[in-house]
Formats: sequence, structure tokens, C-alpha cells
Amino acid sequence: MKTINLQEKHSRFNTYWHPHQIAVVDDMQVLLAKVKGEFVWHSHEHEDELFQVIKGTLYMQFRDRTEVVREGEIIVVPKGVEHCPKTDEGKEVHILLFEKISTAHTGNVTHDLTQTTYPKI
Amino acid sequence: MKTINLQEKHSRFNTYWHPHQIAVVDDMQVLLAKVKGEFVWHSHEHEDELFQVIKGTLYMQFRDRTEVVREGEIIVVPKGVEHCPKTDEGKEVHILLFEKISTAHTGNVTHDLTQTTYPKI
Repeated sequence: MKTINLQEKHSRFNTYWHPHQIAVVDDMQVLLAKVKGEFVWHSHEHEDELFQVIKGTLYMQFRDRTEVVREGEIIVVPKGVEHCPKTDEGKEVHILLFEKISTAHTGNVTHDLTQTTYPKI
Repeated sequence: MKTINLQEKHSRFNTYWHPHQIAVVDDMQVLLAKVKGEFVWHSHEHEDELFQVIKGTLYMQFRDRTEVVREGEIIVVPKGVEHCPKTDEGKEVHILLFEKISTAHTGNVTHDLTQTTYPKI
């Protein structure tokens, strides 16, 4: 029941593509991540996933097109849909994710970037 | 799977304390609202509720204290906890809510401000 400042929380870590948990809402969690470059193609069989861009511009690649998501914008990736977020080359982007606590980081694939735990900050 | 711009969505309505649904994530929904003045004291027996301030400053009153929530900040009100959001007098504040689709607007109370449906925009 304390106010959470997103910018302050983002300042607490410097790893890329590694979500940090800042809050829980019922069986969902709020994650923050810093991202740069391209992630990995994957899907989540059972869970939708919401992305909100806090700083920068995120490109959400789908197999048939790419959606541009800027500061103050959100996008929901439905369950089962392959996606691969990326940024402009060398550009750091700050994002907030809202998803089930059960959601696996890279969904149906395992990759060097795959994280199995999200630090609570 | 389309990018959603929060500011553009907020521009589509001018009623206060009436959430509008902009997205669904599993059994949760993303709502936008414009608020001004004081709401009504209530609690949600079974659901947590996340508030994010998009524009302005929100005061989340609890029975024992008030949390200030500014732009770029969030607060989660746990299930069962009485709360009553308010703004500075005459000031319009834009908020995003993240909560179960089942969450009743004014929880355990009925009030002139109570809305039973949230337009989809």
C-alpha cells in the first residue's frame, strides 16, 4: 500500500531483458525491464501479456508485421501468438509488463536470455 | 494486437469517475478514467486494484493515512482495504486501472457515482 515510482525502480538495476517484480495484483505481477537489441521469438500458450513503454520506443515483432510502441503506449500480446520485441540498435528502452505470475519468461522456448526468477525490488 | 495510445484514448471521453475499458489481459482489464474531486469510500472483498497516474496527482486515502501518487507512479490497493481516491480541488487527473473484470466499481457500497458498465473504447 505504498506508492511505487517507476523511474526510481528502473534505476535499481542495469541488466537487459531481465524483468524485476515491483508489485502483485491478485495472480498477476507487474514487472519492469530494461531492454536493448532483439529478444527471442516465443509465445505463451496460456497467458496474455501486456507491455507498456515507459521510456523509448519498442518494436513488437509479430510474424506478419511489427507494431511500434512508444512512451505512453501499451500493447497486449494474446496467448499463443509468437512475438519478439526489439529496440532500435543500441537504444535502451524501459518497459513495464503485466502478466500472470505463472508466465514463463521466454514461453515455449529456452534461450541464453531465459530467466527463471525475477528479483523483487 | 494493436498499439494503444493512452492519451488518445483518454481524449475520447469527458465524464469523471467513469472507467472505460481499453484492453483485456486474461481475466483482468485495463481501464482508463478521468477523475476530479473525491470518490467514495469502499473496498473490494475479493480483488486487488492497481492505479497508475498518467497525468496529475492522485491522493489515495486510506483510513489511517493518505498516499500521494504522481505521474509515473502506481499503487496497489489490496483486497479488503477501504480506500477513497481524491484529487486537489478542481484538478482533473488521468488514471489507468488494472483489475479483475469481475471487480465492482464501488465495491461494497452503492453510490450515485457507481457505474455498472464500462464502455469499451
